[in-house]
Amino acid sequence: MSDDFETITIDDAKALGEGMLLAAGYSEDHARTITDCVVRAQVDECHSHGLYRLISCLELIERGKVDPAATPVVEDRAPAIVRADARRGVSLVAFGAGLPVLAEKARHCGIAALAVNNCFHFSALWPEVERIADEGLVAIAVTVSHAWVAPAGGSRPVFGTNPFSFGWPRPGKHPFVFDFATSAIARGDIELHRRTQTPLPEGTAIDADGKPTTDPEEAVDGAMLTFGGHKGSALSAMIELLAGPLIGDLTSAESMAFDDDAKVTPFHGELIIALDPASFMGHAALDNLKRGETLFDAIEGQGARLPSARRYRARARNAKAGAMPVRTNVLDELRTRAAASTPKSN
Amino acid sequence: MSDDFETITIDDAKALGEGMLLAAGYSEDHARTITDCVVRAQVDECHSHGLYRLISCLELIERGKVDPAATPVVEDRAPAIVRADARRGVSLVAFGAGLPVLAEKARHCGIAALAVNNCFHFSALWPEVERIADEGLVAIAVTVSHAWVAPAGGSRPVFGTNPFSFGWPRPGKHPFVFDFATSAIARGDIELHRRTQTPLPEGTAIDADGKPTTDPEEAVDGAMLTFGGHKGSALSAMIELLAGPLIGDLTSAESMAFDDDAKVTPFHGELIIALDPASFMGHAALDNLKRGETLFDAIEGQGARLPSARRYRARARNAKAGAMPVRTNVLDELRTRAAASTPKSN
Repeated sequence: MSDDFETITIDDAKALGEGMLLAAGYSEDHARTITDCVVRAQVDECHSHGLYRLISCLELIERGKVDPAATPVVEDRAPAIVRADARRGVSLVAFGAGLPVLAEKARHCGIAALAVNNCFHFSALWPEVERIADEGLVAIAVTVSHAWVAPAGGSRPVFGTNPFSFGWPRPGKHPFVFDFATSAIARGDIELHRRTQTPLPEGTAIDADGKPTTDPEEAVDGAMLTFGGHKGSALSAMIELLAGPLIGDLTSAESMAFDDDAKVTPFHGELIIALDPASFMGHAALDNLKRGETLFDAIEGQGARLPSARRYRARARNAKAGAMPVRTNVLDELRTRAAASTPKSN
Repeated sequence: MSDDFETITIDDAKALGEGMLLAAGYSEDHARTITDCVVRAQVDECHSHGLYRLISCLELIERGKVDPAATPVVEDRAPAIVRADARRGVSLVAFGAGLPVLAEKARHCGIAALAVNNCFHFSALWPEVERIADEGLVAIAVTVSHAWVAPAGGSRPVFGTNPFSFGWPRPGKHPFVFDFATSAIARGDIELHRRTQTPLPEGTAIDADGKPTTDPEEAVDGAMLTFGGHKGSALSAMIELLAGPLIGDLTSAESMAFDDDAKVTPFHGELIIALDPASFMGHAALDNLKRGETLFDAIEGQGARLPSARRYRARARNAKAGAMPVRTNVLDELRTRAAASTPKSN
């Protein structure tokens, strides 16, 4: 993987992102929301979901898939269920529209779910569970992608990379957050390996004949594997069901069929569950949240890392500097595209 | 592992289990509920959670831990939250008391949660998610155990075996169910390896110095590992938080401290979430559940196995025969114990 990085200020990254997205035809709401998300990921040095993903968003328009000005419709389905129909827009805008209703329902009912439907999805899930945890709620979020991943014991792709994400509020600290692909490697990492022509880690993919491979091109023609054998495969199946049929949206195979070789980011749904500690424990909730700290101390006290620790350290460093590293080849491509879309008189 | 099995009829197993538990001091409700659960597991040839677990239940009384006649208290905490306080009884009785309220709340609110608190827990989770799925609801269940498992990158036990279980209703078929330990191996299997003095699979445990081991005795003095590296470790941490501090109950480390070397089954809580497909999708729910069948067909169509398939096949076989295989050494111990507890005049 290329280790050439360039530093860009957070302000410049925002201007670059919003400018490109507006020029491409996204609404102001879409441009602002998408840019905020990819810049946050970049500040956290989550390179696979950072500025790189702006390219995916441009391709969504170029290939005629997304409605770049869609306004989501929020529907109250049940006392603890809210649905945000993205209407072929990007998931982030619909998530933002549904979030206040989700939080209000979770506080009233104790647990609630937000189904985001009919959305294009390119982002990590951790920004969403982190926002929910910042409101003092516990969050679980899952979504499917395209059928790239074979089930345990199989040889052909059925599942998406199907991320599972979790957020837990920590009094006075960044929330405990994890967000992992149930595939053995993230699809974004496969793409980066393709671009940089570097081999994949062992045990992450099979070729079109079902044989193990470390060649990213062969993996794209074959299938990725899940993490953790049959257990990871079971989780991935669960995510297909929760973010697909349960909420009336597409499975990874259906998303891929919808894509119809346009090779854009998946079109599907997302399920987010929020739980309110106060509803379970009343006035004892805060004391119980603090007991979670004992668990974190036991993990970190033996030199093991909390899942979100590296991102938070990068965030602190880059927020202080007001700038962050971006892969040079990503930034070159973005600037080339930005230049091509800018009228010469500017 | 010993492969000597004896066949016992389902009726004899029920009589044996209920008789032993009643003689030991369990209430009729406890005896019937515990026996039903372990016999169901044995019929499914889930040996680690079958009749073998009756021994754990006897030890709970012998070592003065359980209240064998506890009556659970069900408390309505919020529109979508119900709590079932087991009052130091066995979890299964409290689960049974809370289940109707959980189902009613899930159907009304769309999603609901049941917290089972202050319970001794020895059973698999799949019987519970299967019961919920049989009611047409989607279910997730998690619980902690004793601190036997080291976090990824660590060397000392923090987590329990922390199972994650999921159930999905399938029209006209057994539900799709999985139930796996987030440890690389089930604790019940470690115990069976100890009894049979056979080595553990590679990569499942470390010794007291943090070095890999396949010796079950060394593993008991050291720590088990999670499945799937840092991802399995993250899931295990999530389960600690959801089934511990969120619901005001013990973490695996706290459960172990409570145990105080009595070496009985864990004392803690369990979180069960139920989701109602009809609340998400209304009249389209059934069609969407059927779309889940397309996913299952794609998995099984390439020769991969659904997680619950082997259990369901064993169930069909043994239910038809009215009898099932049990490890001879387990049955010998149970019969010895039963004889010792039976008055001679009988």
